[in-house]
Amino acid sequence: MKKSIGPRAIIQPNPVLIIGSYDQNGQANIMTVAWGGICCSKPPCAAISLRQATYTYGNIQHHKAFTINIPSTSFVKEADCVGIYSGKQENKFETLGLTPVKSDVVNAPYVKELAVVLECEVIKVVAIGLHTQFIGEIKDIKADESILAENGLPDIAKVQPFIYNSAGSDYYALGDFLGKAYSVGRRK
Amino acid sequence: MKKSIGPRAIIQPNPVLIIGSYDQNGQANIMTVAWGGICCSKPPCAAISLRQATYTYGNIQHHKAFTINIPSTSFVKEADCVGIYSGKQENKFETLGLTPVKSDVVNAPYVKELAVVLECEVIKVVAIGLHTQFIGEIKDIKADESILAENGLPDIAKVQPFIYNSAGSDYYALGDFLGKAYSVGRRK
Repeated sequence: MKKSIGPRAIIQPNPVLIIGSYDQNGQANIMTVAWGGICCSKPPCAAISLRQATYTYGNIQHHKAFTINIPSTSFVKEADCVGIYSGKQENKFETLGLTPVKSDVVNAPYVKELAVVLECEVIKVVAIGLHTQFIGEIKDIKADESILAENGLPDIAKVQPFIYNSAGSDYYALGDFLGKAYSVGRRK
Repeated sequence: MKKSIGPRAIIQPNPVLIIGSYDQNGQANIMTVAWGGICCSKPPCAAISLRQATYTYGNIQHHKAFTINIPSTSFVKEADCVGIYSGKQENKFETLGLTPVKSDVVNAPYVKELAVVLECEVIKVVAIGLHTQFIGEIKDIKADESILAENGLPDIAKVQPFIYNSAGSDYYALGDFLGKAYSVGRRK
């Protein structure tokens, strides 16, 4: 028997994504979001949701561009930190000792120290409620060569991304390999 | 030095979400999506992206409602299966021995055997490209009492959701607890 727990913003799991943007003075900023993910395969697009109150919201409205940086488990403190404090009060790259790099395809900075970055140009802005969704076309992905798999794409076992659990407000690493997609459920 | 790997639909990790809907004859259908997640906190909303070619796309356009069922690792084969085969050809609930239950708040079925379900009413449809995004307001969440934590919400360690890796086309379980959000990155 299922119990009603009411309307809540809970999906398990959520990704942990660090969003890079420039403010109106060209200063690089980062913040962490968990409301986001891929939303289209062709053209490849990613969606992130932001509250209007955030510094990043104004930055992206102004420049129509952002990066999505995927933190590994070794950056869990930094990821949590840039989700707590605002770029309105501080330069978060400086306080964390991280290095902003200007994307060569969109007007946004990425984080040099993180292994995988998606460079996105805003193609739609969807007002929903407390959060507004920015849909960005992924113009390129940049990745450290050290984490690439034989197929030339990021090896998740080397990237070591982690997840956010909105029901418990905590972070978890990835665990065991379970099987190949489009394969384990295929009939003989 | 980062290497360009081109524009691709890669974020690590993606959730694995089983979408329930009724067809125009009232028959229950399920399919798996990995392009989805929470997109707003107030009102709580979830977004899922579907190709127009899918059976579920037509179902949701017709009924403006869907459920998001969170599979545990013990359902990885079923989740992969309903992402491969189409409800146009078969009744996937029947072939997998799963039980559809009509939601009491939206016009869509959920999967009795899965521990957590979000019941969503479509509030926006966003055409992007190959995929169209359906934004659903979460009208209620139903969960098996056996997987609830002390805070009354789904305990991720009991739900045991898993993730999809679009760069390697494979599934992974969740791993170790890394820390509390809004805490591990807070300054003293």
